[in-house]
Amino acid sequence: MKLWYEDKKLDPGIEKFTVGGDTVLDQKLLKYDCKASIIHARMLERNGILSAAERQELETELENLSAEAQTGGFFINPEDEDGHTAIENRLRDKLGVVGEKIHTGRSRNDQVLTALRLYIKDELLCVKKSLKSLIGGVRRFSNRWGRIEMPGFTHTRKAMPSSVGMWAEALVEALYDDLDQWKAAYALIDQSPLGSGAGYGIPLDIDRNLSASLLGFSRVQKNPVSCQNSRGKFEGTVLHLLGFIMFDLHKTASDLVFFTLPDLGFFEIPEDMLTGSSIMPHKRNPDALEILRGYYHVVLSYEFRVKSLGAGLISGYHRDFQLMKEPVIQAFEIVRESLFIAGLIFRSLKAVPGRCKAAMTGELYTVEKAYRLVQQGIPFREAYRMVAEEWNKKR
Amino acid sequence: MKLWYEDKKLDPGIEKFTVGGDTVLDQKLLKYDCKASIIHARMLERNGILSAAERQELETELENLSAEAQTGGFFINPEDEDGHTAIENRLRDKLGVVGEKIHTGRSRNDQVLTALRLYIKDELLCVKKSLKSLIGGVRRFSNRWGRIEMPGFTHTRKAMPSSVGMWAEALVEALYDDLDQWKAAYALIDQSPLGSGAGYGIPLDIDRNLSASLLGFSRVQKNPVSCQNSRGKFEGTVLHLLGFIMFDLHKTASDLVFFTLPDLGFFEIPEDMLTGSSIMPHKRNPDALEILRGYYHVVLSYEFRVKSLGAGLISGYHRDFQLMKEPVIQAFEIVRESLFIAGLIFRSLKAVPGRCKAAMTGELYTVEKAYRLVQQGIPFREAYRMVAEEWNKKR
Amino acid sequence: MKLWYEDKKLDPGIEKFTVGGDTVLDQKLLKYDCKASIIHARMLERNGILSAAERQELETELENLSAEAQTGGFFINPEDEDGHTAIENRLRDKLGVVGEKIHTGRSRNDQVLTALRLYIKDELLCVKKSLKSLIGGVRRFSNRWGRIEMPGFTHTRKAMPSSVGMWAEALVEALYDDLDQWKAAYALIDQSPLGSGAGYGIPLDIDRNLSASLLGFSRVQKNPVSCQNSRGKFEGTVLHLLGFIMFDLHKTASDLVFFTLPDLGFFEIPEDMLTGSSIMPHKRNPDALEILRGYYHVVLSYEFRVKSLGAGLISGYHRDFQLMKEPVIQAFEIVRESLFIAGLIFRSLKAVPGRCKAAMTGELYTVEKAYRLVQQGIPFREAYRMVAEEWNKKR
Amino acid sequence: MKLWYEDKKLDPGIEKFTVGGDTVLDQKLLKYDCKASIIHARMLERNGILSAAERQELETELENLSAEAQTGGFFINPEDEDGHTAIENRLRDKLGVVGEKIHTGRSRNDQVLTALRLYIKDELLCVKKSLKSLIGGVRRFSNRWGRIEMPGFTHTRKAMPSSVGMWAEALVEALYDDLDQWKAAYALIDQSPLGSGAGYGIPLDIDRNLSASLLGFSRVQKNPVSCQNSRGKFEGTVLHLLGFIMFDLHKTASDLVFFTLPDLGFFEIPEDMLTGSSIMPHKRNPDALEILRGYYHVVLSYEFRVKSLGAGLISGYHRDFQLMKEPVIQAFEIVRESLFIAGLIFRSLKAVPGRCKAAMTGELYTVEKAYRLVQQGIPFREAYRMVAEEWNKKR
Repeated sequence: MKLWYEDKKLDPGIEKFTVGGDTVLDQKLLKYDCKASIIHARMLERNGILSAAERQELETELENLSAEAQTGGFFINPEDEDGHTAIENRLRDKLGVVGEKIHTGRSRNDQVLTALRLYIKDELLCVKKSLKSLIGGVRRFSNRWGRIEMPGFTHTRKAMPSSVGMWAEALVEALYDDLDQWKAAYALIDQSPLGSGAGYGIPLDIDRNLSASLLGFSRVQKNPVSCQNSRGKFEGTVLHLLGFIMFDLHKTASDLVFFTLPDLGFFEIPEDMLTGSSIMPHKRNPDALEILRGYYHVVLSYEFRVKSLGAGLISGYHRDFQLMKEPVIQAFEIVRESLFIAGLIFRSLKAVPGRCKAAMTGELYTVEKAYRLVQQGIPFREAYRMVAEEWNKKR
Repeated sequence: MKLWYEDKKLDPGIEKFTVGGDTVLDQKLLKYDCKASIIHARMLERNGILSAAERQELETELENLSAEAQTGGFFINPEDEDGHTAIENRLRDKLGVVGEKIHTGRSRNDQVLTALRLYIKDELLCVKKSLKSLIGGVRRFSNRWGRIEMPGFTHTRKAMPSSVGMWAEALVEALYDDLDQWKAAYALIDQSPLGSGAGYGIPLDIDRNLSASLLGFSRVQKNPVSCQNSRGKFEGTVLHLLGFIMFDLHKTASDLVFFTLPDLGFFEIPEDMLTGSSIMPHKRNPDALEILRGYYHVVLSYEFRVKSLGAGLISGYHRDFQLMKEPVIQAFEIVRESLFIAGLIFRSLKAVPGRCKAAMTGELYTVEKAYRLVQQGIPFREAYRMVAEEWNKKR
Repeated sequence: MKLWYEDKKLDPGIEKFTVGGDTVLDQKLLKYDCKASIIHARMLERNGILSAAERQELETELENLSAEAQTGGFFINPEDEDGHTAIENRLRDKLGVVGEKIHTGRSRNDQVLTALRLYIKDELLCVKKSLKSLIGGVRRFSNRWGRIEMPGFTHTRKAMPSSVGMWAEALVEALYDDLDQWKAAYALIDQSPLGSGAGYGIPLDIDRNLSASLLGFSRVQKNPVSCQNSRGKFEGTVLHLLGFIMFDLHKTASDLVFFTLPDLGFFEIPEDMLTGSSIMPHKRNPDALEILRGYYHVVLSYEFRVKSLGAGLISGYHRDFQLMKEPVIQAFEIVRESLFIAGLIFRSLKAVPGRCKAAMTGELYTVEKAYRLVQQGIPFREAYRMVAEEWNKKR
Repeated sequence: MKLWYEDKKLDPGIEKFTVGGDTVLDQKLLKYDCKASIIHARMLERNGILSAAERQELETELENLSAEAQTGGFFINPEDEDGHTAIENRLRDKLGVVGEKIHTGRSRNDQVLTALRLYIKDELLCVKKSLKSLIGGVRRFSNRWGRIEMPGFTHTRKAMPSSVGMWAEALVEALYDDLDQWKAAYALIDQSPLGSGAGYGIPLDIDRNLSASLLGFSRVQKNPVSCQNSRGKFEGTVLHLLGFIMFDLHKTASDLVFFTLPDLGFFEIPEDMLTGSSIMPHKRNPDALEILRGYYHVVLSYEFRVKSLGAGLISGYHRDFQLMKEPVIQAFEIVRESLFIAGLIFRSLKAVPGRCKAAMTGELYTVEKAYRLVQQGIPFREAYRMVAEEWNKKR
């Protein structure tokens, strides 16, 4: 049953088309929608719309529903359009008139925003934990192998001496940058849209601060139009952060594909992380690194989708916004998995001292040579030319 | 069981990560993979690798498997990595030694390419049919309502007289452009990669022309390196075409959201195609148009994903290519559904003669006025100025 | 003259191709490059590489050069490859041996990073000022016209009562979100890369903290590999912020194109901000709003250029990075201009009370009606149905 | 002077903002705009709007103007807004009343479309020529070095034997695919929009077929609304083609950066195509390859700019379209230059037989080994296992 007055039965083709993947995607949001509904009910009680008993009934049923949703016992019916409808229908089925009160003081437009933000906040916390855990893993790797010298490259050509530690610590520093940007993204999302209704407020005196604080939001997103207009902007910022993180993993994967090239062999990935070929008996391929690398582009395309989806739309809610849910949810899954896999790889990655050492060839030391001349008082550019001429003769 | 020699059991985390959504996506390709395998077996028979009896056994089993896959009776096991492995494992389970022969003369790299191209060709034919059907629908709409005058807009402002027919025929002309571009995309895809192996040919004398022609490809993609390097390019061209089509639907949806604005009311969408609001009892929203509009961006992001996924990779297969399957498959689903919905809408869309007529206000005719002066021998720019001055006084 | 040892004269085609637009783009960075060079020289003095007199000579000449660059008296020669070379060549021409010392302790790789970051920091400060100034302008507009009621839209359809103030304050709240994100972007950029050399440090004891603090950076980006690997990430974050801001202007422009539609007429843009048509004498078009709207996509495309340019590249500098300069510089110009124009528009934008009032039609009040019933004790969903039925009868 | 009736002087800030880079970009289109204007005048003569003498006067002046534009003697004044205005103003300055007649039967909206298409057609022809010339160059390279064996890679790991010829011919085959797609793009563009006016036709009997055929268009784009709605679609298709070509060059550049890695050394790029470092005396970097590689992303971002710029806009012209000119013009410059540079590189690229041969190590032949067993009657999968086991023992 729809939440709206279906005077004429909705055309089934249109229904299927507009619902799309929502029954599946909303399944992930049910938990957060239930949580927000419980808090909303508490606010309604304090504002005198619900009696204590009614609120309790709603709360119990919402907790049941949430538990069922977690264990796979509650499914959203396509006829219900979305999770919000599924929840209200269930409450009405079970609680009758009391269920008819839960939607007081809200609209699906702020309900979905609230559920999404609670979901995003949870996922962001999870990403933060994974980032910290990866940092720990990379550091352990660096502590173990860091002192080994290896060539540093520019233009994919040997440049100057580097070390396994310098390479690994670069990733650590990048991940700390990610943690800093994480804060900004989290703070942006951490605003409560609940009570902004359809985007123009609720003609009823409700306490938005109360529900915001009970839900753990650090502040209220005050202007109801602004709540809706932040669709695309907020998701886009989260996706920017996720892409930012994936970029580091992409770079690491690109490095490892290259550095484990048999002709270089600076690192070794254990056999049980490599896959084979259906035709070439000898093959051992770094598929996990390649998927890690490729996922950067997947997340980037989700970011681009969200950022262009809102284009050309005037203020206020549009159904186009619905298409922003999938990219956010998918991107979180990808990033969570990718951070896990990156950790797994660093746990068993080994530097190969012999190969690293063998690669420390003469050209890597030309700068050092020039600087030795500098320390003897020769101007750098002159020293550079001297070393360059000597080097060119040698070749 | 893997197709490759799993000396050491693949780490389960890595396995899950690299397989990703392939067990689900490949389900859609099984039919094509079976078809290609049947043809491949015929080629092997003619080339003396298989006996007639062996070929027959393989063919029967592949047909069984294909039928089961269609009816949901055959599923790809994550342990199998992908559909190709699932097929070979099944053949070996059922046919023993004969099953061990099917992979002669091919690799998963050309196998997936072949299945994908057969799939794309089928889907493209389906898109073409839908395009033609939509053209028919728009024409019927135009025949019925076309003569009604309505304002033409530039800069979202009334410009000059237009008509329902002029508007609808613009879509028809655009869809014909799509059909033209369709041909180029189809011709590109219509090249057989089968027999290019892992990307460097097969050290065995096989008849690539034979399997190509039996599979209905119009030509062989000869260079095996070129087969692999076209990953991303070919899919990208298909997605460009699909985005090209979606752009027309996006434009049409944007127009209809605007033209059905109650303040304009040039068209009417029937009630059973509109949805309502959970909070506003009066609401009737054109959600289907909004999803249609939004899907353009989804397809565009898939195109961008595919086009950037191949960046920075040297010649030859990389596992990153696997991530190109999903965008292609998803985009086809979206475009097929969208063309269907567009047809549905045109079937019941009505022009509203009264509202159209009422909107034919004076400013629309200033050009006509100027041209009447031109026909009296006044240079256009002077005529323009005369009408402009008169118009400005009136305001 | 190149900074490197041009054993064999570089092919002129290759030279032109690799230099590309750099001689023009670097012109904007010269000022920052000179500033960084002056600080670098001071550090070299304190580290004993330069005498006080040498440092003074360099400083004077760099100040001259910077002044000439500002007034258009100094141009980068294509033969010089880039601004860094042009600067060193000039110093060598004028100061001889002393000029040969300036490049001690740095590489073009950290030099360009430093100049770019100083440039970005300056531009970001300018953007912040413009944001604040726009907030002031929108507030003044809101103070003047805010109390006027106007319809709020969802799905581009009348939804509930809004007001000019609610609409304008939504922009203000959005711009405050921008200011918050601004901080995160600025903090990221505010790390000194100077002294990281080519990406693997300098084989000389130099004081990176000193040059960082003299240049006004709040901290040193320590790991030299990390400095280079942040190419694309840092620029991408700045472009994300700029796109974030442009999104708000895009939304505002979309709203104004719609709200100033003659059929609605809620706002009025003064005549001298509208342009005309070469053929239609009556036309007045909101071109500035359309360019404002379109610029969002331009900035978005710059963001995606930068974010995809680094794909597939291993750690360390690559010449591909050079192509990230143009999008950053262009985007800043666009955003600066756009914020200025947005301010200009709000300064003269007028609400039209009569048209706004006339648009406050019945359907906007159905929620209010339902809530009056709620306040009489009727459960919301029942109240909704009652109003919906009544409304449907009326139509 | 504007072409429209500037009742109130346009605000100078708005003027600057809306004109943007058009005075520079249109400079490239002037030649085509003049050509189209000459043909337009001929059509007007045949349709009785212009006398033979008037037409002649216009033609002479337009030819003068065009010549001046080519030699840098005619510049577009920002006050003129665009090239179209500049041309008409000049004609009016020189020819008086006759100049006031040239705009009869057209609008700037179809005028810019016409000039752009003529420009694109010319540039496409130039691209085709360059493609063919590059094919010739790669073939000459292949003829010279093709027989040398080199390793083929999958997953950036040695896979099976390949050859310099197989690698080079893959590019040739890809470029032939490009030539095929070229045809489709050219055919799409090759439709005359002239006479579609502002997007709703001209209230005057003009002969669109005549001007189309005199301009060399193969057909008329009939529906005037369709002409405007193809903005974004047509440019997007051209950019898709250009990106398609750049992808091949990107792949080639990626290959060459990798294959010329000193540790592999399969190919040699001559010294005079490599650049150096400001700090490392020994460095020789393949910057041209890196710029070639990076330009793919630049063109890709232009494609996505154009494809997203039209989003959310209803039928008819919008000023946002103006922002599509730059990406098209820039992309053509990039592609032209890149094809030239690719040719230059192939002209002097050398394979290094010794290094190629040394790299033909054992693992490349495991498939051959398995196929020898197949030819002895062993099923492929069994043969694979036998070789794999043996190979694993050896390691």
